[in-house]
Amino acid sequence: MDNIQLHIREVLGFLTEQEILNQASLATACNQALHNGSREGSDFLGWVNLPSSITEEEIKDIEDAATVLRTRCEAVVVVGIGGSYLGARAVIDALSSSFDWLEERQSRKNPVILYAGNNIGEDYLYELMDWLKDKEFGIINISKSGTTTEPAIAFRLLKEQLESKVGKEEARQRIVAITDATKGALRSLATIEGYKTFVIPDNVGGRYSVLTPVGLLPIAVAGIDISKLVQGAVEIEKATAPNVSFDYNLPAIYAVIRNLLYKQGKKIEILVNYHPKLHFLAEWWKQLYGESEGKDNVGIFPAAVDFTTDLHSMGQWIQEGERSIFETVISVKKPTHTVQIPYDESDLDGLNYLNGKRVDEVNKMAELGTRIAHVDGKVPNLLIELPELSERYIGQLIYFFEKACGISGYILGINPFNQPGVEAYKKNMFALLEKPGYEEATKAIKQRI
Amino acid sequence: MDNIQLHIREVLGFLTEQEILNQASLATACNQALHNGSREGSDFLGWVNLPSSITEEEIKDIEDAATVLRTRCEAVVVVGIGGSYLGARAVIDALSSSFDWLEERQSRKNPVILYAGNNIGEDYLYELMDWLKDKEFGIINISKSGTTTEPAIAFRLLKEQLESKVGKEEARQRIVAITDATKGALRSLATIEGYKTFVIPDNVGGRYSVLTPVGLLPIAVAGIDISKLVQGAVEIEKATAPNVSFDYNLPAIYAVIRNLLYKQGKKIEILVNYHPKLHFLAEWWKQLYGESEGKDNVGIFPAAVDFTTDLHSMGQWIQEGERSIFETVISVKKPTHTVQIPYDESDLDGLNYLNGKRVDEVNKMAELGTRIAHVDGKVPNLLIELPELSERYIGQLIYFFEKACGISGYILGINPFNQPGVEAYKKNMFALLEKPGYEEATKAIKQRI
Repeated sequence: MDNIQLHIREVLGFLTEQEILNQASLATACNQALHNGSREGSDFLGWVNLPSSITEEEIKDIEDAATVLRTRCEAVVVVGIGGSYLGARAVIDALSSSFDWLEERQSRKNPVILYAGNNIGEDYLYELMDWLKDKEFGIINISKSGTTTEPAIAFRLLKEQLESKVGKEEARQRIVAITDATKGALRSLATIEGYKTFVIPDNVGGRYSVLTPVGLLPIAVAGIDISKLVQGAVEIEKATAPNVSFDYNLPAIYAVIRNLLYKQGKKIEILVNYHPKLHFLAEWWKQLYGESEGKDNVGIFPAAVDFTTDLHSMGQWIQEGERSIFETVISVKKPTHTVQIPYDESDLDGLNYLNGKRVDEVNKMAELGTRIAHVDGKVPNLLIELPELSERYIGQLIYFFEKACGISGYILGINPFNQPGVEAYKKNMFALLEKPGYEEATKAIKQRI
Repeated sequence: MDNIQLHIREVLGFLTEQEILNQASLATACNQALHNGSREGSDFLGWVNLPSSITEEEIKDIEDAATVLRTRCEAVVVVGIGGSYLGARAVIDALSSSFDWLEERQSRKNPVILYAGNNIGEDYLYELMDWLKDKEFGIINISKSGTTTEPAIAFRLLKEQLESKVGKEEARQRIVAITDATKGALRSLATIEGYKTFVIPDNVGGRYSVLTPVGLLPIAVAGIDISKLVQGAVEIEKATAPNVSFDYNLPAIYAVIRNLLYKQGKKIEILVNYHPKLHFLAEWWKQLYGESEGKDNVGIFPAAVDFTTDLHSMGQWIQEGERSIFETVISVKKPTHTVQIPYDESDLDGLNYLNGKRVDEVNKMAELGTRIAHVDGKVPNLLIELPELSERYIGQLIYFFEKACGISGYILGINPFNQPGVEAYKKNMFALLEKPGYEEATKAIKQRI
């Protein structure tokens, strides 16, 4: 069976093959460091062998919990932020109908998946709770500590709404907590209330957590086959084992190329898709790479576009703006459905030359035509090809990007597994909100404003 | 009544007030050039006095057409790409419920607004047409020429579906064409079929077209008050007249500051919101600025984030990555609804210190805390404040950004009203698709691949 592919031909006008091969031993060493934990961030390498370590029992446990929610709920609110949000959403969006939210109540096969605790929008929460009023809903609450402000506020509100609607007993059946194995506020609450729980492993950071229950439970609730997703990830885990040589290690090649381009002054990487369903896959990727590499005043700026949509917005800049960018295209070989362009008697729109062609053939020529145009415009272009949009290939892509990110961060020379900068806004926010314990900080910040 | 405000205090550690004031006469001259058409791109200045030129009659004509669609349709598909898509979507999303698509058929006050022709996704079109099968739908087809590939394909398919579902006669009542006044395929088709039509003025480019029927008709169909939207734009049109002095001309000040920061090496501008509803306003802004300024190998790279969501993805990079960015925050003073944080007996989540506070108070402290953290991290910060999310202030914001973009482009020294780079991919695509008339190009491109 095919795997996802990496095509590098369209960077070879910007880099030579020799320059890439010169990095082989460095990249291989970085890959090995991920496996043997010999470098910085080694406390957070649980994701490296995670896919192959997932047991059938664990999958079944997740699927059983999903079945409870699917049976009792027409809507499930996933409460989480950052890595506790983006992975699930990326996979669910990629593998659901583009118009999933529009399905009518009676014709739904899966609960509507909604997201909360990923912002502090008062109107957002009001409108969410207003819509939920007459719905049978459940909650998946995802938080390592249980005290992160955004999800904690959302969960406090939604728990109260659910309990007052269906009673404490039924609410207990419809709430699942995904949290630390032993510590923290959410673990304590789950024990007291008797919620079904799943564990966020200590050695897997948020942005690498999609293949833990953090991602897998919401994905399973949405009706997606999580064992196939994991299987895909296992395939790339094996294909990038520490003994695999550089020429066959696609994530390592990707990591090397993006670092070489960065050194040439390509400061922005644009992740491109031609399938609107992949929009949140790109958002997930932005967190993975931005949070891993954006530190010590270095790091490629990760951006994303949905083409051909954004050829009519960012296309001009990409074609003719500063030459400080490169592109990585995610291409899907085969669409799931079939739509042909029909014949039209009058042909006023001049489309009859496409009569009988599938829409995707046009999409593919747009993709190819754009690659050529952008390379002509001095934008190096990498291409990752998926045979189709399916659980298996999305699983492959997830592990591809995770592995490449670890290698890339080590090549760059930073610790790809911390995120010290994320605390800065929180500290100020707590000081401004006069959170107990922040008295000194409160005094200091109030003098500044 | 308040207008939107621009706060520049948090850039003054990076630029002096004097440096800004030194640009006053240049900026004023650029503003005047937009009014007197003395510089490049003067064929596309129709947007400058557009808001104040819209008559009550025109508004009524649009509202009448909207009423026809609202009466006959439970869903309206807006077919358009780029500027024929983003403006309407930006305003509709900003002023609708966050969960609008989830409303059940029987409880909807407005038709569902869907978008097509903004991509070439075969699955997207299949799933759209599948959902529309048992729905009463209409189409707003927006295209200057009627031959742009993406919308032309979508319209051909949807027109056929609609006609075969409800018959040619009824379909005619449910299709509105927004196109050139006299020329082009869509104008011809509309004349033959007898569609209701609106005109895209010759002197208004796509990315400046949101206050023409291109934006106003879909917005009106969504149940939004377009006269208030236009009124807001008129207010900023007047507040930025050519005789207004620089100190009072907020878009001119914004334009000056972003150019000064760009000269300092701030190559990326991140538009920040704390209201998820503003996501597509940022997408509209990205087109406006990216397409206007990204040429001749110059131009700020426009990016956008939704906070606090993306503080947990791009936040790390913004705080500690390369110091090549600045931020422009859109802040909304007053939420529309009220949600208070409830008291909880156990207080396991430690949120009782927020008991009784409105959710937006926390959001505002996150906003302020983030600004302080980012400025401390050497990210200059501009703030645009809207009193609330309403038609009027969104109208003000639209014109603010349009005017600022024109001035900014002239300061940068490029023509902000062309987009030569957008043609590059199209030419290649047509050649690859063997479009009649592209025989030479087809031969050439086939030799390259």
